[in-house]
Parts: sequence; C-alpha cells; structure tokens
Amino acid sequence: MQFPAAQIAHLINGKVDGDPTVAVASFGKIEEATDGQLAFLANPKYEDHLYTTAASIIIVNENQEIRQPLKATLIRVPDAYSAFATLLSKYQEIVAQQTVGIQEPSYISKTAQLGKNIFIGAFAYIGENVSLADGVKIFPHVFLGENVKIGENSVLNPGVKIYHHCVIGANVTVHAGTVIGSDGFGFAPQADGSFKKVPQIGNVVIEDYVEIGANTSIDRATIGSTIIKSGAKLDNLIQIAHNVEVGHNTAIAAQAGVSGSTKIGNNVMIGGQAGLAGHIQVANGSKINAQAGLGKSLKIPNSSVTGSPAYNYNQAIRSQATARNLPEMEKRIKELEDLVKHLMAEKV
Amino acid sequence: MQFPAAQIAHLINGKVDGDPTVAVASFGKIEEATDGQLAFLANPKYEDHLYTTAASIIIVNENQEIRQPLKATLIRVPDAYSAFATLLSKYQEIVAQQTVGIQEPSYISKTAQLGKNIFIGAFAYIGENVSLADGVKIFPHVFLGENVKIGENSVLNPGVKIYHHCVIGANVTVHAGTVIGSDGFGFAPQADGSFKKVPQIGNVVIEDYVEIGANTSIDRATIGSTIIKSGAKLDNLIQIAHNVEVGHNTAIAAQAGVSGSTKIGNNVMIGGQAGLAGHIQVANGSKINAQAGLGKSLKIPNSSVTGSPAYNYNQAIRSQATARNLPEMEKRIKELEDLVKHLMAEKV
Amino acid sequence: MQFPAAQIAHLINGKVDGDPTVAVASFGKIEEATDGQLAFLANPKYEDHLYTTAASIIIVNENQEIRQPLKATLIRVPDAYSAFATLLSKYQEIVAQQTVGIQEPSYISKTAQLGKNIFIGAFAYIGENVSLADGVKIFPHVFLGENVKIGENSVLNPGVKIYHHCVIGANVTVHAGTVIGSDGFGFAPQADGSFKKVPQIGNVVIEDYVEIGANTSIDRATIGSTIIKSGAKLDNLIQIAHNVEVGHNTAIAAQAGVSGSTKIGNNVMIGGQAGLAGHIQVANGSKINAQAGLGKSLKIPNSSVTGSPAYNYNQAIRSQATARNLPEMEKRIKELEDLVKHLMAEKV
Repeated sequence: MQFPAAQIAHLINGKVDGDPTVAVASFGKIEEATDGQLAFLANPKYEDHLYTTAASIIIVNENQEIRQPLKATLIRVPDAYSAFATLLSKYQEIVAQQTVGIQEPSYISKTAQLGKNIFIGAFAYIGENVSLADGVKIFPHVFLGENVKIGENSVLNPGVKIYHHCVIGANVTVHAGTVIGSDGFGFAPQADGSFKKVPQIGNVVIEDYVEIGANTSIDRATIGSTIIKSGAKLDNLIQIAHNVEVGHNTAIAAQAGVSGSTKIGNNVMIGGQAGLAGHIQVANGSKINAQAGLGKSLKIPNSSVTGSPAYNYNQAIRSQATARNLPEMEKRIKELEDLVKHLMAEKV
Repeated sequence: MQFPAAQIAHLINGKVDGDPTVAVASFGKIEEATDGQLAFLANPKYEDHLYTTAASIIIVNENQEIRQPLKATLIRVPDAYSAFATLLSKYQEIVAQQTVGIQEPSYISKTAQLGKNIFIGAFAYIGENVSLADGVKIFPHVFLGENVKIGENSVLNPGVKIYHHCVIGANVTVHAGTVIGSDGFGFAPQADGSFKKVPQIGNVVIEDYVEIGANTSIDRATIGSTIIKSGAKLDNLIQIAHNVEVGHNTAIAAQAGVSGSTKIGNNVMIGGQAGLAGHIQVANGSKINAQAGLGKSLKIPNSSVTGSPAYNYNQAIRSQATARNLPEMEKRIKELEDLVKHLMAEKV
Repeated sequence: MQFPAAQIAHLINGKVDGDPTVAVASFGKIEEATDGQLAFLANPKYEDHLYTTAASIIIVNENQEIRQPLKATLIRVPDAYSAFATLLSKYQEIVAQQTVGIQEPSYISKTAQLGKNIFIGAFAYIGENVSLADGVKIFPHVFLGENVKIGENSVLNPGVKIYHHCVIGANVTVHAGTVIGSDGFGFAPQADGSFKKVPQIGNVVIEDYVEIGANTSIDRATIGSTIIKSGAKLDNLIQIAHNVEVGHNTAIAAQAGVSGSTKIGNNVMIGGQAGLAGHIQVANGSKINAQAGLGKSLKIPNSSVTGSPAYNYNQAIRSQATARNLPEMEKRIKELEDLVKHLMAEKV
C-alpha cells in the first residue's frame, strides 16, 4: 500500500511542504531510510541527515528551518515525535492480527471470571477467583495468583508473574518476565545476627494506562499497597520495593531502584540506574538524573538533582567539572604554601 | 475475628499500656490505619503519627516516650518490629491455605524422587533425578534441571529456573523469575579479539533458611560451587557471579552485584546497587553502602565503606560534603594566588 | 577415567614439566583441589597456591617462574586460561548427554519450520511461522513469538522469551529468563503531562556466536533493528535499549545498561553496572570501567574511561585519589588564608 503525503498530512493535522503526491509504503530511521520510506526528525542531533537522507517524506516540527536544498517532501506538525507516534499506532492497528481465544493447554481455575474477547495463551496459569475484564490479553507462561484482578484491555506479555491479591487496572501493558507482588525485603534483625522474616500481607495496585517494561520487580506491601498510579511508565529491570508509591505520569528509566516506603510524586522523571533511599518523598515534577543516589526527600516541586549522593543539578555539575582538576588544584595549594612560607620567612 | 489487646500482648510477651479490652480485626500502617486496626511504630521518622493515627492498638518499643496524650492502647515490647513480624506470621498461619498436591499438566521425570506433602503447580518441570524433600512447594512454571535437590519445606515461586546439579537447602524461599545455576561469565580472550567459552562445570549451593528475591541471577561455578550460606537474605535483581561465596546471615539489597570468586563474610550488609569487584574478600560484619563500588578487599571486620571507588565511610562522607563546595574552594585559591602575587610584587 | 599428564599435554599442545605419568580424574580450583585433580593458574593473585595445592597436575603459562619446590606436575602452555577452557570443553563433550526430541506437552504452531536434531522441551511455545534450524535446543518454558528465526545449533535456556519477528543467528546461547524483543521505552510527552505510546515496530537481530546471560533485557527497535553483532558476550541483568548496536566481540559485564540508539564499536569492554547515555558512539577497543556513567561519545579508539560522569581513566583515578583528601585540602586553604590575611595586615 502506498500513502501519499497529502493523505498522511491529513491524518496527523500537518502541512505539506513539497510535493503532496509523493507516496511512501513503509517507515525508516532518518539516517537509514530509503526511497519510498517515511522518516521523522525530532532530535536536533540528527538534523544533518535532513539533507542526506533518501527518505521520500519527513515529518518535522513546524518551525524546522531549512538551511540547504533537500529533495524530500516535508510534513510540518507542532510535535514531530508525537505525530510519528500517531502514525505508527494507526499502522499497527492495520497490521496487528487480533488475537482472541483460549489456547491449550492452559490452566484456568473454575472460580476464575473471564470477560469477553479475551486471549489466554498456552501454558498460562489463571488461579482461583482471578477476574479478567473484557479485552484482556494473557500471553503464554503468565502466572496469575489467586484473587488477582486485571482491568479492561490490559496486556500481560509472556512470562509475567503476578502474585495473589494484586490489582491491575485497565489499558495496562506489562512486558515479559516482570514480577508483580513478590514479598518485600522485610527482615527483623535478631540478637544472634539472624533475621526473622516479616510476612508481607499487603498487595500491589497498578492503576490505568501504566506501562511496565521487561524483567522489572514490584514488591507487595508489608501491609496496605505498593501503588503505581495511572499513566506512569516504568522501563526494564527496575526495582520497586514494598509500600512505594509512584505518582501519575511519572517515568522511570531502566535499572533504577526505589527503596521501601518512598513516595514519588506526579510527573517525576527518574534516570537509568538511579537509586532512591527508603522512607523519603519526591515532590511533583522533580528530575533525578541517571545514576543519581537520592538519600533525602526532595520537598520542592520541580527539583533537579544529580550525583551520588544526589544534590542540586547545576551545583553538582559545576563541582563535578572542578573535581576533574583536583590534582592541579592541590598543586596550586602547594605552590601557595611555598610562596607564603617564603614570605613569612623573609618577614622574620 | 476480634483480638483484644490483652491476648495480643500475651502472644508477643508485651505489656499493655492502656485499655486491655480494646480489640482489633486487621493490620494497618500507622499513618493510614483506621479504627479497629493494629499498627506498630519502630522507625522514629514515623513517631508523630503516634498522636494522630486512628489505629486502636499500637505496638511500640518498650522505652517509647509519650509526649502528648493519645487514644490508642499501646503494647510495649523489647523490639516492636520483631514483635510485629511474629504477629504477622501467626496471622498468616491462620489465613494461608495449605496448598498440596500435583496440578496437571506438569512434567515430572520418572526418575524424580518426591517427598511427602509437596505441591507441584501446573506447568512445572521436574527433570531427571531431581529430589524434592517433604513439604516442598514448586509453583507453576518452575524449571528444575537434572539432579537438582531441594530441601524440606523450601518454596520456589512461579517461574524460578534452577539449572542441573544445583543444591537448595531446607526452608529456603526463592521468588519469581530468579535464575540459579546459569553459566558464569567466563571467556578466554583470543589473539584475534574473539572469545573462547570457558565451560562452567560447577554448580550453585544454597544453604538452609536463605531467602532470595525476584529476578535475581546466581551463576554456577566454573569448577566447585557458588555458595550462599545459611540465613543469608538476597533481595531482587541481584547479580551473584561464578564462584562467589556469600556468608551466613549476610543481607544484600536490590540490584547489588558481586563479581566472580569474591568471598563475602558473615553478617555483612550490602546496600542497593552496590558493586563488588572480583577476587576480593569482605570481612565479617562489614557494611557496604548503597551504590558503593568496592574494588579492594575489606580485611578488618565491621568495616564500613561508601562511594565509588569505596573507602572508609566517615572519611568519604566528609569528602563528599567538601566536594559540593569545590567551585567555591577554587575561587578561594584564585583569590589567594592574587593576594600572594600582590605581596610578592610589592616585596620587589 | 584417568588421564595422564602426557595425554593432557598432547590435547592442549603443552609441555610437561614433571612426571608425565601422573594422572587425574577431575578438575579443581587451585586453592581447593585435591590429589588426583587438575587445576590451572592464570591470575597472579593465586600464585602462592602453586606451592600449597594438593592438585596433581597444574596448567600454567609457559613463562611461569617457579620460586619454591612443588610436587605437582606442570603443563606449560602459551595461555593457561584458554588451554583450561579447551580441556573443559572436551570434558563437557564427553559427559554431556545429547538432548534431542520433542517433549510433551509443548505448543508448536502448524506453520513452524523445524530443522533436524532439534530439542524442544515441555511447555515451550513455538509461534506462527517460527523457523528453527538444525541442532537448535529450545528448553522448557521458552516463548518464541510469530516469525522468530533461530540459527543452527543455538541454545535457548529455560524461560527465554523472544518476541515476534526477532532473528537469532547460529551458535548463539541465551540463558534463562532473558527477554529479547520487548518494546523500547518510547513515549512522546503530551502537553497535559501524560505520555503517548510510540509503537515499536522494529525487531532485534542477534548475530552468530553471541552469548547472553540470565535475566537480561534487549528491547526491539522503534523502526529498524536493535543489533548484537557476532561474537559479542553479554552477562546477566543487562539493559539494551531500542536501536542500540553492540559491536563484534564486545563484552558487557552484568547489570550494565545502554540507552537508546547508542552505537558501541567492536572489541569494547564494558564493566559491571556501567551506564551509557543514549544517542552516543563508542569507538572500537574502548574500555568503560565498572559503574562508570558515560554521557558523551568516545570517538578515539581504545579510549579508557571511569567515573560518573566518566572521563579519561588515568586522570579520573588521580582526581578520585585527591578527592579523598578534600577536607584536609580545605584546611590547608584556610591556613593559607589566615597567613595571607596576617601578611596583608602587617603590610598596612
């Protein structure tokens, strides 16, 4: 199928800048795209490719300046990345096969409640009193413990394990290998150096429109609930400890970890491999840089921190830059000491 | 069921401070508990909630001071967190359904030896010559390779994978998605830049009363055994490389990693996201802070380190504090240089 | 079976130094080996064990000096570690049982193409149009989505999940719990603070002779392919984001993470828990130290960096050493300020 620029522009409310009859059949990255493909440009790092790409159509931000002649047809939109996402979604709707039905062998408890238009893959395990709302997709090797609830249209990819009594909202996606509801790491130290297990009788609640990556772990609460609020996005290999709360539309990058009972506000951004101590609060809109180690609460909204231990982003960046010259700084101190000793000696 | 304060105090050897007839039916966190619930206070950070909580009974440390009037009945014990753990365990014993039996379909090799009162979930795979002692629970999607041995009352949660010849002790709990016995990362570099695989023919030995979190990886030894000693507690997403030894009652927090052949002593505490180099020793009772990077052995028992590279905790904390003022320190050096230059010039 | 030193030396092109008739039946680590075992010495850290080990035969580097009398027979080779790897491989060939056949129950789509001499374990899931070349081994609980291709003699250990359209080369090994082809973390931020999902329509390509550890995650590309080139070795719990490229014979240690669209050259070494930002390049032969945080491209081949943020290895090590004395440096500045103030005052 060929899609002309005019039709694509219509789909994403864009403005054609060039030949509206040029057509494409597939997508390509701007640095690799071939004739007949559509690409997009959102990251200024890739701007030079605008003039060298073989792509036939390029979606750009509406204010994109053109510094050289180019042969592609542009489609200008307010937000090129979002427009590209919209196009890909429409493409996916066309090509995705609608998987429904129940594959065998699977294990479905007699007490489970199954909605309409659901998919249950082979080797999936649906425990006692599990409830699956309409449109839910359970891929092979998924485990749902007793009393788990899954909301409408949520998708659990292969091998997701959800322990008993956890609650998943609607339109949630969880990627392969992720574990939800494992025991929190709670052990009371005893006088002889051993540990007494603290049973974890709470659960995990994942609200609507959350997406969780692969091989992530979200522990159940000791009592009450570990909560991931609606719209939050979690990447792969993330650790969320017991009784943590992650706010609405908060995004956490891969391999970050959040310790027990910490409460993260809304619209927070947490970089990859960052770590948060337990029992702290992070105000709305805060940014925690990759590999940062946050030991204290961020009480002021829209705070920005980096480093381990983490503190104010701008101050930390300056200190890190200075730190590279430490051996030279020490040399300067030594020289000063020599000069001053000299001056002091002369004075006498 | 309602449990009066007097009865609860009896169970945990506590002393009632308030009305002994007040009764509770469930548990709550002190900051969220409602009337009719039992809470506990162990972390001083939460002390203010003592006076505002709606909880009917609160377990506190015996020396807890009371600074304002409060309405809850207190139960005073030597260690509030441990006492709370005891209560939760007793509660769990009452409510937990005793899962036993073998669900179908499961794959059980004819040469496997099965003890009494075991549970094998659907889609579990029990390989050749596997031995399961009495009371073992194997949840769905668990894989046990040939010659694996599991000791009494151990619990393998959904999707745990244990490679051939690994040995798990008694009363061990392993959470979902954890892999035990995968190949160590051993490759001999060749002259042409490629790597030659070093076969890993050892195994993993997990001793009694060990608990391991979700999505953790413990590699088998090249030769000999990777060993996790009795009473050790490992959190989620931890990396234990080949030929590592983890000592008795050592606790390792989430996302920490230990490189090959490193030997960790007893009663060591390792914080989240900490990393240990290979071929080093860590003395008993040492503390390695979160995100620390330990490159050298800790030979003195009860050492405490932080930072990357890690060194003495107190010294590192002071240096980290000073480091925040580095740009200002550099300014002071510049000023000194100007003044001294001035003094030197005048002298001439 | 007993293997005399002369026969072993012949297998690995070594030279016997001692009694060529001494025989061994098994392997041991040099620090633990018993009489009748073969050990090796490659890491100089373990050299003292040469004189105390009970091993009967020890493989050493050809230039290994002997400082004390020893009782073991030595076999001298150019590279002791490689020779040991060769021996273990030959041993494994002898003892490994050749698993072939299809265990039941398994799920094999009718449209799947199966090569000769393959193994498919119980509870494995082979989706539509999957193709398995000759000699492939699919262990229990593996999931292969539609159109996945697996090359000759590749081994997928228990619980590996490979999403649709991903391509795995020949002689690849993937360890348990690893996920290949999950969605990249792509979300376009919207004006109201929410995120719009960017569909990930690309795939993952793993070339020949790659080995990947346990519980690692490799995301599919947004468009195009995430690529792991031939001979690369990845350890456990690693994050590879969408559209990343990892070069030939590059080795990545456990818990390292690579952000989206970053291109890593050939023969690069990345230490454990290191993190790489997105959209950067790493030149061939570079070394990125454990826990380093690389924010910028390494454009010069054979660069070596450490620290977070990462920079030149030697410079960073010196700065880190100086940083430990920061409180003392500050004291010296304070003393200088006092002295200079004194000198200035006197001048007046």
